[in-house]
Amino acid sequence: MTETGPVTVLPVSFVGGAHGPWRVTASTAVVGEGLAGAERLAVHEGPGPDGAGAVWTLRGVVSHARYVTAAESRALAARSPALGRDGATRAALIPVRKSPRWWALAQDERREILEERSRHVTLGMRSLPAVARRLHHGRDLGEPFDFLTWFEYAPADAAGFEDLVSALRATPEWDYVDREVDVRLER
Amino acid sequence: MTETGPVTVLPVSFVGGAHGPWRVTASTAVVGEGLAGAERLAVHEGPGPDGAGAVWTLRGVVSHARYVTAAESRALAARSPALGRDGATRAALIPVRKSPRWWALAQDERREILEERSRHVTLGMRSLPAVARRLHHGRDLGEPFDFLTWFEYAPADAAGFEDLVSALRATPEWDYVDREVDVRLER
Repeated sequence: MTETGPVTVLPVSFVGGAHGPWRVTASTAVVGEGLAGAERLAVHEGPGPDGAGAVWTLRGVVSHARYVTAAESRALAARSPALGRDGATRAALIPVRKSPRWWALAQDERREILEERSRHVTLGMRSLPAVARRLHHGRDLGEPFDFLTWFEYAPADAAGFEDLVSALRATPEWDYVDREVDVRLER
Repeated sequence: MTETGPVTVLPVSFVGGAHGPWRVTASTAVVGEGLAGAERLAVHEGPGPDGAGAVWTLRGVVSHARYVTAAESRALAARSPALGRDGATRAALIPVRKSPRWWALAQDERREILEERSRHVTLGMRSLPAVARRLHHGRDLGEPFDFLTWFEYAPADAAGFEDLVSALRATPEWDYVDREVDVRLER
């Protein structure tokens, strides 16, 4: 069987405030409440900072994949670039919370909405290898967002990234999103 | 679509030490390292105690189901008793960690091993409504165990519970268990 993806759990903190390599260029409340204004963003891997001096700190863990099949996992692994590429000077942090109605669904129902009806994996695949992506899970941690998705791309790929985000927001899956913020960044 | 199961995340701490309503009658290292000796066990729901005075504290969250289908979810909900029944004076806390090999598998591969090859859900269903069960997830929290399963049953149902535990340990799914402790309790 395929053995790809992270096998350990990596805690990651996204810290909005006055420090960090990423400059916040926009912060939009897409669904529900937004985030307070922050000038810069730092991304900490490993046991988190205490949040002192931060405007906000969002936490999540890079953990095992929850929906993709073995075949999809292989295809994604073959095309997915690493984070931190030299030319990838644009980034987006998109924290999302899904509704109680989503979490009350069974695994097969959630998978059907996510892929068979919304083509979430397929849409993401189309933006590879231009757009690097890493998903962080916050739900079991009691965090305000269930997911923190982090994207990195080159300025030349910005239009393709906007297409991806727009396409996802138009899917049936997004009917279950009850809070979403879109933070754009440059370094 | 079905909407069953918890829609919020409930943190739970299992505290082994000198206090609590449950008396530890046995603690067995089934696979890998065991737990230190504790006379009693307390179960705390909500934001956890600080662990002061405890011999060990294991944390997990009651969260959404990860593998069951909508049909299985309905069948389980229809037969599952509540915790805390008067006659259910026996309990078991079975902390389990699965191997990196398990977590590297895709969702469809894990589901196939768990149910199609190991009949985990089917076996659990057979012990309902005699054995009440609640699953707590610890993996994303960075806890030493991925799962803390809690069972409650009446003395008259003890043999059925032993059959369930033995049957599960003989499945292909259990090849992926790399640490398991079995703590038995009475109140």
